[in-house]
Amino acid sequence: MKRSDLTEKILDIKREKEWSWSYIAGEIGGYSEILIVSSLLGHMRLSKPQAAIAGKLFGLSKAEIAMLGEVPVRGAGVTMPPTDPLIYRLYELVMINGPALKVLIEEQFGDGIMSAIDFDLELSRVASPKGDRVKIGMCGKFLPFKYAAPAGNATGGNVEHQLEKA
Amino acid sequence: MKRSDLTEKILDIKREKEWSWSYIAGEIGGYSEILIVSSLLGHMRLSKPQAAIAGKLFGLSKAEIAMLGEVPVRGAGVTMPPTDPLIYRLYELVMINGPALKVLIEEQFGDGIMSAIDFDLELSRVASPKGDRVKIGMCGKFLPFKYAAPAGNATGGNVEHQLEKA
Amino acid sequence: MKRSDLTEKILDIKREKEWSWSYIAGEIGGYSEILIVSSLLGHMRLSKPQAAIAGKLFGLSKAEIAMLGEVPVRGAGVTMPPTDPLIYRLYELVMINGPALKVLIEEQFGDGIMSAIDFDLELSRVASPKGDRVKIGMCGKFLPFKYAAPAGNATGGNVEHQLEKA
Amino acid sequence: MKRSDLTEKILDIKREKEWSWSYIAGEIGGYSEILIVSSLLGHMRLSKPQAAIAGKLFGLSKAEIAMLGEVPVRGAGVTMPPTDPLIYRLYELVMINGPALKVLIEEQFGDGIMSAIDFDLELSRVASPKGDRVKIGMCGKFLPFKYAAPAGNATGGNVEHQLEKA
Amino acid sequence: MKRSDLTEKILDIKREKEWSWSYIAGEIGGYSEILIVSSLLGHMRLSKPQAAIAGKLFGLSKAEIAMLGEVPVRGAGVTMPPTDPLIYRLYELVMINGPALKVLIEEQFGDGIMSAIDFDLELSRVASPKGDRVKIGMCGKFLPFKYAAPAGNATGGNVEHQLEKA
Amino acid sequence: MKRSDLTEKILDIKREKEWSWSYIAGEIGGYSEILIVSSLLGHMRLSKPQAAIAGKLFGLSKAEIAMLGEVPVRGAGVTMPPTDPLIYRLYELVMINGPALKVLIEEQFGDGIMSAIDFDLELSRVASPKGDRVKIGMCGKFLPFKYAAPAGNATGGNVEHQLEKA
Amino acid sequence: MKRSDLTEKILDIKREKEWSWSYIAGEIGGYSEILIVSSLLGHMRLSKPQAAIAGKLFGLSKAEIAMLGEVPVRGAGVTMPPTDPLIYRLYELVMINGPALKVLIEEQFGDGIMSAIDFDLELSRVASPKGDRVKIGMCGKFLPFKYAAPAGNATGGNVEHQLEKA
Amino acid sequence: MKRSDLTEKILDIKREKEWSWSYIAGEIGGYSEILIVSSLLGHMRLSKPQAAIAGKLFGLSKAEIAMLGEVPVRGAGVTMPPTDPLIYRLYELVMINGPALKVLIEEQFGDGIMSAIDFDLELSRVASPKGDRVKIGMCGKFLPFKYAAPAGNATGGNVEHQLEKA
Amino acid sequence: MKRSDLTEKILDIKREKEWSWSYIAGEIGGYSEILIVSSLLGHMRLSKPQAAIAGKLFGLSKAEIAMLGEVPVRGAGVTMPPTDPLIYRLYELVMINGPALKVLIEEQFGDGIMSAIDFDLELSRVASPKGDRVKIGMCGKFLPFKYAAPAGNATGGNVEHQLEKA
Amino acid sequence: MKRSDLTEKILDIKREKEWSWSYIAGEIGGYSEILIVSSLLGHMRLSKPQAAIAGKLFGLSKAEIAMLGEVPVRGAGVTMPPTDPLIYRLYELVMINGPALKVLIEEQFGDGIMSAIDFDLELSRVASPKGDRVKIGMCGKFLPFKYAAPAGNATGGNVEHQLEKA
Repeated sequence: MKRSDLTEKILDIKREKEWSWSYIAGEIGGYSEILIVSSLLGHMRLSKPQAAIAGKLFGLSKAEIAMLGEVPVRGAGVTMPPTDPLIYRLYELVMINGPALKVLIEEQFGDGIMSAIDFDLELSRVASPKGDRVKIGMCGKFLPFKYAAPAGNATGGNVEHQLEKA
Repeated sequence: MKRSDLTEKILDIKREKEWSWSYIAGEIGGYSEILIVSSLLGHMRLSKPQAAIAGKLFGLSKAEIAMLGEVPVRGAGVTMPPTDPLIYRLYELVMINGPALKVLIEEQFGDGIMSAIDFDLELSRVASPKGDRVKIGMCGKFLPFKYAAPAGNATGGNVEHQLEKA
Repeated sequence: MKRSDLTEKILDIKREKEWSWSYIAGEIGGYSEILIVSSLLGHMRLSKPQAAIAGKLFGLSKAEIAMLGEVPVRGAGVTMPPTDPLIYRLYELVMINGPALKVLIEEQFGDGIMSAIDFDLELSRVASPKGDRVKIGMCGKFLPFKYAAPAGNATGGNVEHQLEKA
Repeated sequence: MKRSDLTEKILDIKREKEWSWSYIAGEIGGYSEILIVSSLLGHMRLSKPQAAIAGKLFGLSKAEIAMLGEVPVRGAGVTMPPTDPLIYRLYELVMINGPALKVLIEEQFGDGIMSAIDFDLELSRVASPKGDRVKIGMCGKFLPFKYAAPAGNATGGNVEHQLEKA
Repeated sequence: MKRSDLTEKILDIKREKEWSWSYIAGEIGGYSEILIVSSLLGHMRLSKPQAAIAGKLFGLSKAEIAMLGEVPVRGAGVTMPPTDPLIYRLYELVMINGPALKVLIEEQFGDGIMSAIDFDLELSRVASPKGDRVKIGMCGKFLPFKYAAPAGNATGGNVEHQLEKA
Repeated sequence: MKRSDLTEKILDIKREKEWSWSYIAGEIGGYSEILIVSSLLGHMRLSKPQAAIAGKLFGLSKAEIAMLGEVPVRGAGVTMPPTDPLIYRLYELVMINGPALKVLIEEQFGDGIMSAIDFDLELSRVASPKGDRVKIGMCGKFLPFKYAAPAGNATGGNVEHQLEKA
Repeated sequence: MKRSDLTEKILDIKREKEWSWSYIAGEIGGYSEILIVSSLLGHMRLSKPQAAIAGKLFGLSKAEIAMLGEVPVRGAGVTMPPTDPLIYRLYELVMINGPALKVLIEEQFGDGIMSAIDFDLELSRVASPKGDRVKIGMCGKFLPFKYAAPAGNATGGNVEHQLEKA
Repeated sequence: MKRSDLTEKILDIKREKEWSWSYIAGEIGGYSEILIVSSLLGHMRLSKPQAAIAGKLFGLSKAEIAMLGEVPVRGAGVTMPPTDPLIYRLYELVMINGPALKVLIEEQFGDGIMSAIDFDLELSRVASPKGDRVKIGMCGKFLPFKYAAPAGNATGGNVEHQLEKA
Repeated sequence: MKRSDLTEKILDIKREKEWSWSYIAGEIGGYSEILIVSSLLGHMRLSKPQAAIAGKLFGLSKAEIAMLGEVPVRGAGVTMPPTDPLIYRLYELVMINGPALKVLIEEQFGDGIMSAIDFDLELSRVASPKGDRVKIGMCGKFLPFKYAAPAGNATGGNVEHQLEKA
Repeated sequence: MKRSDLTEKILDIKREKEWSWSYIAGEIGGYSEILIVSSLLGHMRLSKPQAAIAGKLFGLSKAEIAMLGEVPVRGAGVTMPPTDPLIYRLYELVMINGPALKVLIEEQFGDGIMSAIDFDLELSRVASPKGDRVKIGMCGKFLPFKYAAPAGNATGGNVEHQLEKA
């Protein structure tokens, strides 16, 4: 059984039952809606109790429930660059704004990255008379690059900060 | 003269003068910092008055100033997938969360996309005792796909909405 | 069930019944012919009432009808660059005329794009003694790039236009 | 001398002189604006008299003028998929509408293609209270695929049409 | 049913029956051997009467016969660059001789292409004491690029030719 | 010095002198026009006496003349798939007709290939009232795949043929 | 039936029967071991008598036996660059030694190639106290590039050699 | 000035002076040897005091020294897959062992990754009578994926852990 | 039967039985845990006795057991660059640290590589108050590039070392 | 200075002086001809004494001589798949014979590879009345994959061999 087959099965049941994602996420509970949807689409995992609820909801086998609780091969089956316009726009935003975000984050935070693991993602709707807007909030921990001292040099910590102050 | 040569020239002067992006953006003014940096890196354009200020600041020629005011070939020279970890993390977030964002936006807004053109981008710092966080806010107008009526059928507007109500 | 499997099923029934696209589009109604064909090929979606008609026409299951009403992963399964000569010629036209279209649209409309979402597509035949011609009309809303003011700067609207006038 | 260097040179002079494309096309004359711009950007060629005018306008050498009159390696230097949003939208439209255009052209015209060589391209602006629209008109000769008779079979013409009638 | 599945089915029957391509092409008739083989391999289409004969020969269903008469997605499933040495040699010949053919065709015919649609292809054997030779004859209509006059300029025809004479 | 720089230099002189390829090929002599042009474009080599003539014609240095006599890295700098329509059409013909040519050559000649080395290429013009045609003749030696006998098995020659007869 | 399915079937029977390749090659006979294995893996073909033996050995159907006797699409399904370390090392050797082999073969043999068709391949083991060595012997006919005389010039043979002597 | 030009300059001086990396790293000090080499090759950055020392050592300009202190576009110019055998072997190890490392890290640590940012890298030599061994030690902080609670649900922390315990 | 199907089967049984990798590796024994997991995932092979145990554990057929004992096509099915964040981080580490590791290994060991075949891989957990760390130890034999003497020159051994001493 | 620039410089001098590779290799001495050529083309390195000779021969600077003695980024600048027919044939041989070589080496030697590092390469000419043949001999040490015992298991050596015997 491939993860993508389980995803197709779940989607077929969702169609059959005429459930919305919002209903499914409410039933499973515990995570934000986006995380539950991501799990069912095969890019995140459900906790064991959540997988059990999902299993009951969709009438899944033991192995299928176990699979929902496993960490998937994230990103599998997602074409890059994305062919779908909705996803492509996000890709384009990274391509075009990436260089500026890089130098500004580095100027304001130092040498490091925004974590994609210790990370929150929010989706919301902003009403506007000129047409409602989609709002996506990304917020990840800043992780500074670690610069080690030469071997045999006993000072602990991140050498970088000490050097800058020197 | 290629746009990338002008970018290298501007970066060399920035190094020589020891200016921060924040200082440069303050001098040029008018746009958010991220848009000014993006313009100087060759992915957005400055307005004419801004380009004139930038020209004085960096000591640019007439043709160079004109180039800063031209729409560039956005995304030129940006390797995809990104090799740089900071930019790659954003790419990864699109790849992994893209499918869930797609189905949720479509469930909540209908068939359409978040515009990458009528779009706002914000970068901020969120203090946290466990380590500060990078916050990136994306907000774009929702654009519904337009579904046209058959030729010869005089009803204007977006047929889709009328059909759903039928 | 994958969307591509549903497409193959619909095409097989079309062959069996010896229906033309024109007949099918007439039966389903409501959209232009090109949108209905695109929906059945898996790149657009039918409205619910249309999907119900299509379901009756092709004898589809409830889940299959629901799938026709879902936004598909547009562009899935389309090889790029296209191997088929008919589609390749369109691709080639974009590659060769794209740069000129870009600078002329920007000169005539300002910094922005032709929307591919708020967009009309028309196909027609132009009779000619030297051989009939295929005419493809594309017409999309011009979307100006939005340039935001620096944070804390209360002026609303698109800063760009104000700056140019300054 | 590479064609791309000549393009950069012409663009620099255009910036220096503050000429618009519309002005340049008017000076050179003879072709539609889009063809003249395409020629100067290195994807079409000017006729000899046009190249001579362009040479005077931009102060070009004999070899540079000759180059403007040569057929270039069309499409050279155009990244595909396009990174620039304006050009990408056109690419996306081909990817998403290509399959439907293919089956409809084939249903209405028979087995063949829309020529990209015996082809007209028009760009215009459509005023609209909801925001002006960009209109791109493509019109190419329909070319039917030629199906040859078996060797030794003396019937001339396109066998296909004869067979269909049989 | 995918076109590639129909191809596999036809090939299996050919193996079972021990038919040569030459026999099959003779039975179906009407086209050159190469066009019939190309149609059965999924890159060209048979006329309706031919498809009917092929259907009888191979014992195909109504939908399968209809599929043989449809224009396929040409080139689908052909790996490029080709891995097979026989096809690769043709690819290599294009890669290595393409630039010279381009400039010579342009010098001798003007700005345009050899049509791949209004095109004949012949395969023959040339006996030689040093080893027989494979002869492939390609012959396509020369199509001159069309250069349109500026909008509002009433002169019909191809402006290019008039300009050259001016 | 790179071969591509020498090519650019030769092309610039050709422009300066207003020479046609036909004139240049006539001056150098000895090869067919297409081979001389291919050599000057960097995909074939001239013989020493030819290179000497070319050197005098274009005013080349000793090292440049030597380079014209060296076997180049054939195909270097040729984008594949070709972006230029003229070369792309040849590529497309290989992609679409390659599978049929393969099975027919194998049926008529046996397991082997048409050599791309012991190979002749001819370009000619075929006059036609409906528009002249470009004719490209390819003719290469048929090379049968060699099937060796097991080691220690003394029979020479190509085992394949003996086995088929067995 | 795809060739790759037949390969999987043969491999499964080999596993079931616990046969070595050496045993299978001995049973089929006639070719070197490497050619028989290559044929069973789908990159070469067996002669008809060999295919018949293989058919009996593996219990194949008539169509499967015929398929073993057909020239396959060589190289199909082989990932390049190879992911498997054993095959990758060969790929790497070509990449790194290719340029030197090219110039030395050209210096010693003239302008041409080592045929990959009229070609022998041998695999053997060389005992060594420091660890046994794998020996791969490649030996192909040298094929000189053919340089044709200009059209209308009656001298036969390879012009190149005559020119060099001139 | 591009970062890669600065790298070439530094390497040329190193050659001229006959310095080893070990000597250079000793002179600059503060980081492990591998980090200093990585910085000089353009994939990490030096602290300001280190960049000043490096500037004196190599006789660099003010802008060049500033560049050494800037975060580079990491990975720029590194071909992937690597062509160099030494680097390719590391790539191959990731490709072949990646899947097993993934499931074992997830089984032993939970859903998350080994940080490539908060990360130590060590290179050492292990003497062995059968031939010395290269030892590469990688050690990165385990970062657990963050699973957020549904919006409006006030419980802080990582929901995942709470759910598993429930 | 494809190796990937066997992998899916084994994973399904693992899910059904709720076994951990640690339990499975303990049952099969003989190799390190990582090697056993790699074998079951299709990138290494089990010894015959191990395959027999695995066969009993998972209830496999004779051919499936034989397949576990065969050398697989290593790396098959592993997307590169990896989409999964855990594996991508390892890939990124090679891309970014590869150049520095190359020059340092070469400086310290001479011209050669770290073997990826005569190679040990260890995974362990390092407890830390700031968050536990993943430790991956790689250790491979250093293999010096072999530089052969000219043919006919009888000196054995690696010429390189002799030359350096000369 | 890039390695590729040094290569171009050496090639230009070789052209100027009309030296053959054979002469150059004889002058430098110590390695086989193929290794010396590979070093001068930038894929292997010369020993210090050889680099000194080469430096005198070509009149190189100190830094250039040092560069010839450095391990290059092997394979840099070699297009893959190769466009040049001579190198492509070798690539094709790997692609088509790779799978058979893999299973035969594994059957005859066990699980491992032919080293591309501890490796000899020989090029020779085999006279033949039907046309001389190019012979390439590859001979590399067989390296068995190392299978480690579980941690804490004190038995040294390669566990694999012990298990097979068990």
